[in-house]
Amino acid sequence: MSASTTNKSGPLSGLRVLDLTRVLAGPYTTMILGDLGAEVIKVEQPNTGDEARGFGPFQNDFSLYFFSVNRGKKSLTLNLKAPAGKQIFHRLVSCSDILVENFRAGTMKRLGLDYEQLKETYPSLIYAACSGFGQTGPYATRGAYDMIIQAMGGILSITGEADQPPVRVGTSIGDITAALFTTIGILSAVHHRQNTGQGQLVDVGMLDCQVAILENALVRYFSTGQIPQPLGRRHPAITPFEVFSSQDSYVVIAIGNDQLWAKFCQHVERTDLIDDQRFCTNVLRTENHDQLQPIMSHILSRKPTAEWVESLTGIGVPCGPMNTIDKVASDPQVQAREMIVNLESEIAGNASVPGLPIKLSETPGQVDVPAPALGEHTKEILTTLLGISEAEIGQLQQSSVI
Amino acid sequence: MSASTTNKSGPLSGLRVLDLTRVLAGPYTTMILGDLGAEVIKVEQPNTGDEARGFGPFQNDFSLYFFSVNRGKKSLTLNLKAPAGKQIFHRLVSCSDILVENFRAGTMKRLGLDYEQLKETYPSLIYAACSGFGQTGPYATRGAYDMIIQAMGGILSITGEADQPPVRVGTSIGDITAALFTTIGILSAVHHRQNTGQGQLVDVGMLDCQVAILENALVRYFSTGQIPQPLGRRHPAITPFEVFSSQDSYVVIAIGNDQLWAKFCQHVERTDLIDDQRFCTNVLRTENHDQLQPIMSHILSRKPTAEWVESLTGIGVPCGPMNTIDKVASDPQVQAREMIVNLESEIAGNASVPGLPIKLSETPGQVDVPAPALGEHTKEILTTLLGISEAEIGQLQQSSVI
Repeated sequence: MSASTTNKSGPLSGLRVLDLTRVLAGPYTTMILGDLGAEVIKVEQPNTGDEARGFGPFQNDFSLYFFSVNRGKKSLTLNLKAPAGKQIFHRLVSCSDILVENFRAGTMKRLGLDYEQLKETYPSLIYAACSGFGQTGPYATRGAYDMIIQAMGGILSITGEADQPPVRVGTSIGDITAALFTTIGILSAVHHRQNTGQGQLVDVGMLDCQVAILENALVRYFSTGQIPQPLGRRHPAITPFEVFSSQDSYVVIAIGNDQLWAKFCQHVERTDLIDDQRFCTNVLRTENHDQLQPIMSHILSRKPTAEWVESLTGIGVPCGPMNTIDKVASDPQVQAREMIVNLESEIAGNASVPGLPIKLSETPGQVDVPAPALGEHTKEILTTLLGISEAEIGQLQQSSVI
Repeated sequence: MSASTTNKSGPLSGLRVLDLTRVLAGPYTTMILGDLGAEVIKVEQPNTGDEARGFGPFQNDFSLYFFSVNRGKKSLTLNLKAPAGKQIFHRLVSCSDILVENFRAGTMKRLGLDYEQLKETYPSLIYAACSGFGQTGPYATRGAYDMIIQAMGGILSITGEADQPPVRVGTSIGDITAALFTTIGILSAVHHRQNTGQGQLVDVGMLDCQVAILENALVRYFSTGQIPQPLGRRHPAITPFEVFSSQDSYVVIAIGNDQLWAKFCQHVERTDLIDDQRFCTNVLRTENHDQLQPIMSHILSRKPTAEWVESLTGIGVPCGPMNTIDKVASDPQVQAREMIVNLESEIAGNASVPGLPIKLSETPGQVDVPAPALGEHTKEILTTLLGISEAEIGQLQQSSVI
């Protein structure tokens, strides 16, 4: 590989990622790789770029949505439909370790740039494709968005109030889990390549990822034949494991075994409940949830959340507040773990983004460079990495290749 | 490293994982490593083992919950409190690449087996700790469960009907996202070790991971100061991007731009809506969601879901059904991608588990070995890997060390 044009630290330092991704699942993948030290060169369409640059909210006309998942990357504009653009793209591939794209299956093939066409020339290339349905199967070429994947993948059908219409998971969990699996696939392929020199295709479908995270819903269905339903604020198999109203807001209680149940009952001066034949084991508490729920609600409504959290935490009963987003951002633990990072950007101004939740003792990752303006690094990359002259860069600009 | 006692294929083939995990976040991490070819030795407490062995549903008295996240692993029982148990543990560490645990912070320290105490002797060891709040910060030693993390991490506060109490995300997203980040952390540390020989601590807190996946909720809050709220079945910033009732069930529509909006309006013979001043851009459609929602609902209630999906997919408007868990399992795409895998177990009988959603062209992972009985591989590992004699194994059993 050519020398990196950056000096990033982190465990993936020295790896170069050619990033053709847009919107969320793909950019989230390359963001993590970048946070962990890889050099990420985001290849964007001239003039328009990643369509997420048009998603609000905006600050100084810069999309904060784009900002939050593209920090630490470099932006190079390149028209992949133009022959000269393709030629530059090939030169970039030849000095990169990993290519990531999240187009609909078929798009890269039409450009002549899919894995099948690249692998002959670049046998050590790791090519990651993250799409709605994966590269194979009857739906492969269909477009998909997070919401469709949440619906088709089953998570929506088990989220919501009992006997009510389902609700969307409040974040784009379809995109994000796919991003995490794609990142894992890439890093496992990097390991194989380091042992053998061989690259490969990493094919991740968002729908597949939703199936993979269904967890006990899938097992319960296969075992009992009963179709899992939404259950509101509680766990399907552990009781009381639920969000309750407190005097002033909500409090969540997670009592996973009988010892904790006894501790809780003593604490709230309801020792009668410990040996109550309806509630003395987890199986019974779950079976008789309908009867236990109002009793628990009554108990927990008597004090404000902060008091419950303090006193129950003190006796070792797992519990917590329900934090709204403002409270998450200011939470002392979240702050202590540096999970909210302020980035100063000449273009966008100051903006806070989530930190990296992987804390490494020897090679910590870094979240310290703001997201790039469209094409901010085009000249730098073409000059430093590919040795293209200023004059030629001018010509490429005139012919709208970059 | 000693020779592997298995011949697993996959990109992580040759890596050995010492797995001290229980319940979900930790086992899910080592499951993925195992699916990708690593040898996973699950170290369990004699007699009881992973507490998930006691979670239903059961088949032939074997927990299918445990089965689904522990396929492909080996089980060795070991009492880590006994000096002889600690000694065996050290010998296992010395021939392993990665140690994974998901105890509450402090537990491994009390056993004398935390990273600080192991790293001097095993400087190349990768030690991954996945806990509720991470190894540092004011909440570090608190216990946590998925439900508490969902509540404290903010996702719960934005999931549910508008102006109604929040609901739980239907799967254990707090555990699972932490597992995925932990896996990424481990693989990035493996990469660094391969370059330098240096191991390290991978510290992942479930709460941190929830902050990392908040996505545009966090950005919207920082930008506007308004606290994001649950929005039922729709996306906060794109419209119509929502689940609607159809004639027979539900259908989800994801119209991300004005071209698709025009296509949709033509298809349903409501071209008047294209230039309607309330709905002609995405920003306006989102602002006027209250007025658009009943119009869309009325349109979509006229046909059954299957008809909508066929006709809208035909014209390129992203849409899909809302699948319940039974329909997910039988979906042709899910089947074609081998995302439901049947495993035959002598102990548990036949059981289906989710497949691996990372499809690799050259070194595919594998999901083909059922979950182990408690201590099923104790003798094999002690004999083959550590060269302990049959007689000594008998003594270890008698003294309840294994």
